[in-house]
Amino acid sequence: MSEPLDFYFEFYSPYGYMASLRIDEIAERHGRQVNWKPFMLGATFKITGHKSLIDTPMMAEYTKNDLQRCARLQGVAFHFPDEFPKASLNCARAYYALVDDQPDQARALAKANYHAIFGLGQDGTKIELIAALAEDLGIDGQFIKDAVQTLEIKARLKQETQAAIDRGVFGAPFIFVDDQPFWGNDRLDQVNHWLETGGW
Amino acid sequence: MSEPLDFYFEFYSPYGYMASLRIDEIAERHGRQVNWKPFMLGATFKITGHKSLIDTPMMAEYTKNDLQRCARLQGVAFHFPDEFPKASLNCARAYYALVDDQPDQARALAKANYHAIFGLGQDGTKIELIAALAEDLGIDGQFIKDAVQTLEIKARLKQETQAAIDRGVFGAPFIFVDDQPFWGNDRLDQVNHWLETGGW
Repeated sequence: MSEPLDFYFEFYSPYGYMASLRIDEIAERHGRQVNWKPFMLGATFKITGHKSLIDTPMMAEYTKNDLQRCARLQGVAFHFPDEFPKASLNCARAYYALVDDQPDQARALAKANYHAIFGLGQDGTKIELIAALAEDLGIDGQFIKDAVQTLEIKARLKQETQAAIDRGVFGAPFIFVDDQPFWGNDRLDQVNHWLETGGW
Repeated sequence: MSEPLDFYFEFYSPYGYMASLRIDEIAERHGRQVNWKPFMLGATFKITGHKSLIDTPMMAEYTKNDLQRCARLQGVAFHFPDEFPKASLNCARAYYALVDDQPDQARALAKANYHAIFGLGQDGTKIELIAALAEDLGIDGQFIKDAVQTLEIKARLKQETQAAIDRGVFGAPFIFVDDQPFWGNDRLDQVNHWLETGGW
């Protein structure tokens, strides 16, 4: 088994959501696994000077249209949240609270959280919602509620975000295949091709 | 014959160059023509707050890698210019000096100018170079040299740029298919699919 892919994502990135629905299948097709690595995209915006596409002049209407168009083409439900963007600290902290000891459940919760946000348009940052999604997956919701408040998990998310930045991650989703960087949902076909061919 | 596509581009956009090599063929495949419409991308940066990807913190190295990777995949020569970005006023003015009376030659000159910049890595903003490229195409080079200095052509480029902005163009390349907007070289496959299916 070759090295796993690293899939960096932000829970409030709609293109990250769309990529999250395909990345595992693409990797599995080529005998690879995927490390899911949520980080705080806002931290990179402070460096790049970028804003959410929705908050960037001229780009909001186009982006909403493009997202719906991409979702229809991909055949997935997509609901743009009424409140956007929101700070996804709870989502990412809940993931890191689980990932070391229960990696499969961490990923299942991340997928459920993403689905709540962009599949259903809910406020996926609310800890009550995240705890309920956890319970549905057989994860102790109270453990999640407590964990996201700990200094340890708060520090973990900071470290993971800094590590992403140190590696050159400036947007979301951002995927490394054998240290080859790919930015954006629109690079997933290239990721697949890279895995298929070993690079070009 | 259905309405032509509108292809908005900036001469110093490398992704615009890559799209320029495919857009006519995609349109022709579906019985469409293409209006090439150069504009000044810098004018939109003043609104969006964006900069050239090369001047955006963290993004330069990735972008240069991505461009070479995309070019290899597309099978086209790509040479990143030593001086980048540069103001492409002369390139766009030369195009508009020709387009009303000699549209085919205007497009041929635009293609030659783009090739000089990103196929060969030359400084394609120099009027001597543009005039020489024009002469190679049987266009009067002195006419081009004189035309880019006129108030009329300077005003024309300003008008075309403002018209692009008024229509919602905030990046390059930017393509309209029957008023459906597509931004970026990575949307060309969707443009093709839209033409093929009539939209989805």
